[in-house]
Order: sequence, then structure tokens, then C-alpha cells
Amino acid sequence: MDPSTEEVETKHVDIRPISSSQPNSQDEVYVHKVEIPPKQNLFVEFKGIVKETFLADDPLRPFKNQPRSRKFFLGIQAVFPIIEWAKDYNFTKFRGDLIAGLTIASLCIPQDIGYAKLANLDPQYGLYSSFVPPLVYALMGSSRDIAIGPVAVVSLLLGTLLQDEIDPKKNAFEYRRLAFTATFFAGITQATLGIFRLGFLIDFLSHAAIVGFMGGAAITITLQQLKGFLGIKNFTKKSDIVSVMKSVFKSAHHGWNWQTIVIGASFLSFLLFTKYIGKKKRNLFWVPAIAPLISVVISTFFVFITRADKQGVQIVKHIEKGINPSSVDEIYFSGEYLIKGLRIGVVAGLIALTEAVAIGRTFASMKDYHLDGNKEMVALGTMNIVGSMTSCFVATGSFSRSAVNYMAGCHTAVSNIVMSCVVFLTLEFITPLFTYTPNAILAAIIISAVISLIDIQAASLIWKIDKFDFVACMGTFFGVVFYSVEIGLLIAVSISFAKILLQVTRPRTAILGKVPRTNVYRNIQQYPKATKIPGVLIVRVDSAIYFSNSNYIKERILRWLTNEEEAKNAANEPRIHSLIVEMSPVTDIDTSGIHALEELYKSLQKRDVQLVLANPGPVVINKLHASHFANLIGDDKMFLTVADAVSSCSPKLAEQV
Amino acid sequence: MDPSTEEVETKHVDIRPISSSQPNSQDEVYVHKVEIPPKQNLFVEFKGIVKETFLADDPLRPFKNQPRSRKFFLGIQAVFPIIEWAKDYNFTKFRGDLIAGLTIASLCIPQDIGYAKLANLDPQYGLYSSFVPPLVYALMGSSRDIAIGPVAVVSLLLGTLLQDEIDPKKNAFEYRRLAFTATFFAGITQATLGIFRLGFLIDFLSHAAIVGFMGGAAITITLQQLKGFLGIKNFTKKSDIVSVMKSVFKSAHHGWNWQTIVIGASFLSFLLFTKYIGKKKRNLFWVPAIAPLISVVISTFFVFITRADKQGVQIVKHIEKGINPSSVDEIYFSGEYLIKGLRIGVVAGLIALTEAVAIGRTFASMKDYHLDGNKEMVALGTMNIVGSMTSCFVATGSFSRSAVNYMAGCHTAVSNIVMSCVVFLTLEFITPLFTYTPNAILAAIIISAVISLIDIQAASLIWKIDKFDFVACMGTFFGVVFYSVEIGLLIAVSISFAKILLQVTRPRTAILGKVPRTNVYRNIQQYPKATKIPGVLIVRVDSAIYFSNSNYIKERILRWLTNEEEAKNAANEPRIHSLIVEMSPVTDIDTSGIHALEELYKSLQKRDVQLVLANPGPVVINKLHASHFANLIGDDKMFLTVADAVSSCSPKLAEQV
Repeated sequence: MDPSTEEVETKHVDIRPISSSQPNSQDEVYVHKVEIPPKQNLFVEFKGIVKETFLADDPLRPFKNQPRSRKFFLGIQAVFPIIEWAKDYNFTKFRGDLIAGLTIASLCIPQDIGYAKLANLDPQYGLYSSFVPPLVYALMGSSRDIAIGPVAVVSLLLGTLLQDEIDPKKNAFEYRRLAFTATFFAGITQATLGIFRLGFLIDFLSHAAIVGFMGGAAITITLQQLKGFLGIKNFTKKSDIVSVMKSVFKSAHHGWNWQTIVIGASFLSFLLFTKYIGKKKRNLFWVPAIAPLISVVISTFFVFITRADKQGVQIVKHIEKGINPSSVDEIYFSGEYLIKGLRIGVVAGLIALTEAVAIGRTFASMKDYHLDGNKEMVALGTMNIVGSMTSCFVATGSFSRSAVNYMAGCHTAVSNIVMSCVVFLTLEFITPLFTYTPNAILAAIIISAVISLIDIQAASLIWKIDKFDFVACMGTFFGVVFYSVEIGLLIAVSISFAKILLQVTRPRTAILGKVPRTNVYRNIQQYPKATKIPGVLIVRVDSAIYFSNSNYIKERILRWLTNEEEAKNAANEPRIHSLIVEMSPVTDIDTSGIHALEELYKSLQKRDVQLVLANPGPVVINKLHASHFANLIGDDKMFLTVADAVSSCSPKLAEQV
Repeated sequence: MDPSTEEVETKHVDIRPISSSQPNSQDEVYVHKVEIPPKQNLFVEFKGIVKETFLADDPLRPFKNQPRSRKFFLGIQAVFPIIEWAKDYNFTKFRGDLIAGLTIASLCIPQDIGYAKLANLDPQYGLYSSFVPPLVYALMGSSRDIAIGPVAVVSLLLGTLLQDEIDPKKNAFEYRRLAFTATFFAGITQATLGIFRLGFLIDFLSHAAIVGFMGGAAITITLQQLKGFLGIKNFTKKSDIVSVMKSVFKSAHHGWNWQTIVIGASFLSFLLFTKYIGKKKRNLFWVPAIAPLISVVISTFFVFITRADKQGVQIVKHIEKGINPSSVDEIYFSGEYLIKGLRIGVVAGLIALTEAVAIGRTFASMKDYHLDGNKEMVALGTMNIVGSMTSCFVATGSFSRSAVNYMAGCHTAVSNIVMSCVVFLTLEFITPLFTYTPNAILAAIIISAVISLIDIQAASLIWKIDKFDFVACMGTFFGVVFYSVEIGLLIAVSISFAKILLQVTRPRTAILGKVPRTNVYRNIQQYPKATKIPGVLIVRVDSAIYFSNSNYIKERILRWLTNEEEAKNAANEPRIHSLIVEMSPVTDIDTSGIHALEELYKSLQKRDVQLVLANPGPVVINKLHASHFANLIGDDKMFLTVADAVSSCSPKLAEQV
């Protein structure tokens, strides 16, 4: 040891003479070898992979070590979580659920009528969809806060996709049949994903894409409401902003109805004002929740006494009385519409699922209870299958109503049952009263509901955190606004996949240096004070080495080496004699990866540079041995830490830096 | 400090009282903070990503700091590498190239005739494809060892795909036109990938899938040869093993021709024997290389003198004399066949590319020269575009002929020019001599050529290294053998993508423990002696945290915690108060990932467990700050190493273990 370096040296220097001739970094008296983990049985390994993939949330844990009868009971309970929480249900909880249920019912009834219009269906179908699905969900769902029913985005999506196939005006019956068919297959899709535990597939719609999609859908829905809001009769069928604005301005000089605009604008201002109040004072959350119903009552009464409908103010006119009729016979189980319904159902079902699961997760993490995503999907799927047979269209969890439900103090899914009962009473007794409700009020209610889906704060946060995410977000947003919801979705999925492909084909690599006065080696970009070891190049590979990136990684490492060698030559420094590859982040390697390492080794041999590996993980070390690559480079070229590897490459220099 | 633990303690204990109140792990006198790297300009960052993605091999390096005229010259040279190596071309090199060229020519002529048959084209088209494409490649290609021409697998693929569209017997002219169209678009595909530097896309066919595909194609090709080998007249058009075997046995009692079988079997034995010799003694590599031509000469002469063709031995009959006619007018540039040709061309072009690039890389790494994959693709693409206009079908690099070329001592692409000249002479003068060549001999030549594509050794190595790869390999193999080449390819691509999806949705996580007598923390599965720290759970996340896996990672970490807590409870050990997440392998995080971390933090707060991060990387630390997550958990909860983090969580216990 050079005595001049004594001062920066720390204690482990003193230890060395007593302990071992080979210096090492971790204050120990011997060098730890890279261990080969106990070999696993192939079947056990396979079982492990299957379990992590499909049963990542360990749903079978409660079944472990239980007698058979208990297992059976637990199985029933797993399908119907109501059994679990019904046991300790009490009056306090019921009071909370009752209030919450009444609040969301008052919010959902006007929304339902509006959303049915978005889906090009008669108003009663919106109410139907708030009656049966919440009951089914209450039996099978495990979220305690979600409010079930039709939602704006899914209704719009369904409406757009369906009217591309059948004209809802001319062939109302076929249109409705196709709607039920799509709902049926939406349910089948959801239940299937849940049963086969493929729920993780919905994670492929990234948060950023959803923010963009929701914002775009909100704009599109608002634009669609201009029809009811301005009282325009001939309105475009397209949903993109250009077509809608053309349609609006074309009808400006003869098609607008000022009475409608006055009613719409005044109530929209009222609704937005109550929304503002609700945001300012959290304990007044019920004000915006009941404002829509109040608006409906007042405006209906107003139209009824002034007979404004005779002045061109469009009204709801007629809502069928009575609860859901059966629609089992109306689903297309054969013919060309089967395939079309299937396609639409899959898309609508997935979007509905994404929304419901996001809501479920949000509130579950707020109250800290566990939510089994796959079980949720089965519940939502069953609910839509049953719904499709009882004249409902696709229902899911609503963001706005779930938030109201939560704030109103719901405890269990009983609040959904309460809401369902109120909708039942409405259907049975009150529907005739909606006759004079102006369409403009429904438009105002929808606009005030979807406006909060435009989340500028979230978008700006995305911009700050991840630019690529922002591109996905904006791409989806503009795709929805300027083309259609389908194109927007396609853009969202494509960008998400492009990101994944980029991740797996171009993993990061970093040059490591020694953080001063430690034996820790870190990325020199992040730690500019970290110093390189003369004659040694340390590269960290930040990904599993698979066929998709093995060639890139090999060439990238060689490029680091070439760059470094050129710099050394220019500076007349000693040449690089060792290349240390830090393998800690390399969790796996496949045959292509092994080939790439072999080629790297050969290239390095030609350049007279030795290859040293630091900290290969359990899977990697096994494969290196299985492929005899470990023998090729030599077992003594693999070390537990970068520091050990550096010591072996240049024992003296490692200390001096 | 507990004095009883003194003996296992190492030196850094003594240091502590003098240095700092906070113990730390790396023998230093102060705790290093996690540093935030200097903030990068957005444009610079974006440029970096684009560069890594598309210009990973730094093709512009030689252009750096050069005068404009030099840059222009370098640009020309980049497109035509022949300029570069022609400068120091000499007689020694030419002698090597001449011998190699003659050897591969003798091998390619009989193979070409056979491969043309695989593509359902007349024999001369095979020779055409060995004349023009090698010349174009010699000007533009940068591989020194590849031998260009038609190859078995691509010819089979092209033949199968084309005959699904047009019957090659009844509409020979249209069939040929479609073949040229497909070749044109194969070239366009290849050149486009190269020009836009999307060459990495072919890496998505994994090594394992290629091994399986090649093996399956070899079996399929061999089965197809039974027609010529047994002299069967009515042969199935399908390529799967079941159809072929049915066809063979159906014709057993009347369709087989014993003279054909005798000729075929004896020459096949001869060819396989020479192959065996070539493998045993490497310097006799030329024996199997010229054996096919010798077989052709002998068998042709034999048939000519015995007039065996009158006994039912099928012969080549007629090969058009003269070099390639123009086929520019025959390419479909409009109509329905344009789209079909495009589709077939894309598939055939990609497979041809995969084969050529694999060959190029193999030999480049054997001779240690650099091969720019994207430039290669432009060369191969141009060659096929030119080929499609001069009556050639898809040509690419041949594994077997390239190996012969290499062993015969080629130095540059001049060996391809030599081969091309020999083919030219053949076309001009010798084709009439092939009239009496029996088809059985061509079948024997093809079988002996493709048999080595069945690489059982590679398959068994794949089994040893990676079981998932083995599934991909076998799936592709059986797909090709039992269905068709397209289905096989589809399986290959699907399994490859499934693997990528699995990688990005279910990354590994590991529990870390302290390796005895060090301050190193490692996976306790790999290092069973590593011990856990009481009250602290250390989890390492082995992947970037993206939308596709953020939920899984969050839930997996919580599951580790739950499992651990249950174990502690059962053993009456102290509860876990800290969760350390080792972030070293987490190279990136997106907005979904940040959300997951926030939810994790909230859940942990509910359980009264503190969240501590160890070694977040440069990108991650930036985003943690941008999103204010760093403020949420506190800057003092992030450490440079796990050891530092452990010291802060349980200063006393960390030492005792």
C-alpha cells in the first residue's frame, strides 16, 4: 500500500495484513463468493411463475389449512362478499348507507335520463340500468364505496359505436337489440377476464392515457350537449369537434331556440355554482348532489305552467312507466349482429372495467381495505350480463357519484341497494312527472357532471413527471376530440405499447464510479464526484437481458468501451484492461442473452480486455452455469460486489481513488 | 453497543464515536446523500432518447468534425462499402475470394434449381436470383462472409404463401407476377426498416423461436421433397405433416417409382456421407461443397445414357437459356394483387432479413468486425428491389453457403461476384445440359442441405437455460410441422410478445438480507446465510415501475409485508416498523408508478410502518422530486445504500446481525 494514501484510507486497510492477502471492500476477512441458489424443481418453478402471474394477490390464502366444509363456506363468501359484511351490519352503518343512498339516488335519476340519451336510448333505459345492476353488484362486489349505474363516457362510447352499425332513429328496435347484445358481451368480457385472472390486462391503459381519454371524452360529450342546449334540430352524427362546430354554426341563423338557451344557461350556472360551493366547503358536498334534481323539478314545473314546449323548447315527452321488462329474447345470439355486438361489447366492457377498477382502487386505498381486482371484474361482469337480460345497457362505477357516496358516509354496498329502491319507486310512480322536463336541463346536468373529468392539474403533473406520458395523454385527448373515441383509444393503446417496446428494447446502461471515501459504486451522471478507476470500466446494465435487447446491450457496452478507450488515448492515460459488468439489476437472461454475452466475451478477448461480472442474481447465475458461460469466463471472474471486482482487477488503484 | 457482540463486529464500530453520531455502513465519516443529477434540458434529453433508440450504434461517429467534402465522400462510402475495402484489395485476398467464390458457386447452382421448385417457379428463376442480387449486395453490403442467393426456408415460405393466392400450375404467369410483386415489397420492407433505423424490430423474433422455426421448416421442406424423391405425381398442396403423410401412403401402391427411389436414395446417402466427412475433418470442407454438383453431373449422365426418364423418372426437362429478362412490367402496382403481394412480401422480407442479419452477425463476431444492421438492411432491400425487376425472387444470406464461403477463406464480397460470374456462364452456356437431371437428385440435395437446420443441440441447450424459451421453440416447431409456416411464425411472435408482456407486468421482487460479516444486502433466496434485520423488511424491486406493473409492485410489496408480519406474529418477534425499498434496479418510473408509491405510502402509514428508499437512480430521484413524493416521505428517508437505510432504521440491530 502506498503510504501517501494513508490519510484517505479508512480502517479496513489496517485489518488487511492480519486477515487476507486479497484486499476486499466490505470490512470482512474473506471474499464472499457469488452463491448459486439451491436448484429448484422445474414444477415448483413453473408453479411459482403461474402463481405470480395469475394469482399475484394470493386469493387462496384464507382457504389454506381449513376443513372442507369451511372451505366451501369461504368459497360461497368469496363469490358473495355480502355474507361477510352482513354478519356485523348494524343500525349505525345502515344510517350512513341510507343517507348516502338517498343522496346518490337524487343525483343519479336526472343523470340516468341524460346518459340514456348519450347512448341514443329512450330515457327509461337509463333508469333501468340504475335499478338491476346495483342490486347484483351489492351481492357480489367487494368495493364499499362505488356507486353503480350508467356513466357518461361509457354511454357515449356505446352510443357512438352502436350508431355506426344501426341508425337509432330509423331502426330503434334493432338498435336496442344490438345495445343489449353489446351489454351482454361487455359483461362476458369482464367476467371472463376476472375468472381467468387476466385482470392485469387493463393495466395496459396507463394513467396518463386515461387522463387524456377522460378529458377528451368530456369535451366530446359537452359538444354533443350543444344540441339540447341550443335546441338544434338537425345535428351532426359525428362526434369530432370540427363536425360539431360546423353543425352548430350552420344552424345559427334559424335553428337555435332562445327560450331553450335561457333555461339551459341559467340552470347550468346554478349547477356550476353549487359545484363550486361543494368544492369550497367539503361538508356542503350534498348541495351539488341534490342540485340536479332540484333543477329538474323547478324547470319541469316552469315549462308545465308556461307551456314553453309550444315555443320550441324540447321536452322529454314520455318515459315508460314500470320496472325493467325482460330483454333475454332481444339479444342477438346469431347472425351478423352477434359479431358486431361482440366487438362493441368488448371495447365498452374494457373501458367500463377500467373506470370501475380505478374507482374501486382509489377508495379502497383511502379506507385501506383490500380489493381483489379479479373478483371485482367477475361481479361487474355478472351485473352486466344480468343487466343485458333486463333491458339495461352497460353500467359501471361512476366517479362523481362514488365520490358523493363516500362523502355522504356510506359504509357498505347497502347504499347501492337504497339507491336502487329509490329508482324502483321512481319507475313505478314518478316517471309521468318527467314529461315536461326540458332537454336543455338534462344537457346542463351532463355538462356539469363531465366538466370535472377534464383534469388539467393531472395533465400538468404528468408533464412535470414524464414527458412520454404527456405525449400519450395529449395524443389520446386530441384523438378523441378531433377524430372519435375509438381513434383516441387506439392512440392510447398504441402509445402505451410503444413505451413498453422502448423499455424492453432499449434498456438503460450506466457507467459507474466510486463514490469518494466509500466502497460504493454509483452512476457517475448522478454522482458527479464519483471517480472512475484507471484501467477499469464499470458498466451497469439496467434490465433483464432478453432477445429483445441482447444485441443492443452487447453493442452498447462495446460502444462505452470504444468511447472510453478513445478518451484515454487522447489523454495518454493507461489503457483499459478490465470491463466490469454490474449485473445487480439483471434479473433474468435468456438464450439470446447468453449468446450476446458470449459474443461480448469474444470481442473483448480480441481487444485484450478481461470481462468481470459483479453480483449476478439467482436466476442469472444458474443460467450462466447451465450454459457453461461461467466456465468460459471463469468462476473467479464473478464477484459479490463491484468493489470486490475492482479489487481483483486493480488491487492497488482501487484504494487510491 | 452491546459488548457481547464485540467479537463479530469489525473495525468500523470503533470509528463511530470519533466520527458521527449516525452509524453508517461504508467505512466513511459521513453519510452520503442521494444526489439529484444536474437537470437536463428537455431537448437534450429527447435527443438522447431518439439517439439511443434509432442510432444506438452511433453510425454518424466517423462524420464528426470532418470537412464537408470529406463528409460527402464518407456518405458515399457508407452506402457503398465496396469503396472502402477496394482501396487495399490485393492479390492474396483475391485468391481467397476466387477459391471461395468457385466453391459456393458449385454448391449454389444445384441448390438454386431446387429452391426455385420450392417456390413453385421454373428452375432458371433460381439461377437468376443467384446472379443479380449477389452483384448488388457486393456493392452495398458490409458483411464479408455472407453468401447471397435463394434459400430453402424463404423459398418455401414464399411458395406456400403465393400458392394460397394463385395456382402456380394453372396460372403460371400471374403466379410469377405475384412472386415478383412480393419480392419487390420484401425489398421495400427491408430497405424501409434500414432507412428508418427500425432494424431492432427483427430482434423480436427470439433466438429460440428461430431455432424452432428453422427446424420445423427443415422438416416441412424434407416432407415436400418426398414428392420428387418417391416420384409421386398427385401430391398434396398442403405442407403439414399429416396431409403429406396421407398423400404419400395413398399413392404407395401405384404412385411410387422405384427407379426414382434408387437414384434418390443412393445420392442422398452419398451427400450425407460427404457431409459427415466435412464435419469430421474441417479441412475437407470442400468435399460436401462440391458433392451436389458431382451428383448432378453423374446422375444426369446416367439418366441420359439409360433414358431412365422413359421409365417414369421425372427430369428437369427444360431450363431457359440466357440471363435474367426484365420483369419491371410484371410487378403488380395496382389491383387486388398489390395488397396480397405487399402482405406476402412483408412476411417473406422479414424472415429473409432475420436470416441474413443472424448470419452477418455470427461471422462478424467471429472475425471481430463491426456490422451495421441497419445498413445491411438497406443493402439487402435494394438487392431485392433490383432483383424483383430482373426476374429474381427473394434472395438473402444462406447459412450453409456462407459457412462454406467462410471456410474456403473468403476475404471480401468479391467471392459473391465470382459466384455471380459462374452463374452467368451457367445461364449463358450450360443450362441445356440440365435437361436430363432427375428431380430426385434435386430433392436429395435439398434434403441434405436443410437437414442441418434441425439443431437438436441448440434446442437442448435452450431447454437447459430457459424453459420459457423452450416452449417458444417447440411451439414454433410444432406449429410449422403440424399446421403451416405462417401459423408457426404467428406462434413464434405471440410467444415472444407474451414473454415481453410477462416481463413488464410481473417483474421480480426479492427480500434482501445482510450477508454475514459484510454490509452487503442480497437476495436471501440466493444467499441463504444472509440474515434479515429484526423489525425491518427490505424489498428490492427489479424493474422500472411503469403503468403496466405499478399496481402489481405495490400489491406485491404489501403482500411481502403481510407474510412477514404473520411470520413475526407466529414467532412472537418484534413487529416490523420499517420497510426499505431498494430502488437500484428501478431505472425509471412514470406517473402511474408515482401513484402506486403514494398508495403504498398511505397503506404503510395506516399500518404504522415507515417507508424508506435506498439508492433511487438519477431519473427516479428527479421524478420523485418533481411529483413532490420526495417531500411527502421526507428527504431523510432516502439513502445511498441499503446499509445506510438499515442503520437509520435500527442503528443498534443492524450491527448485531
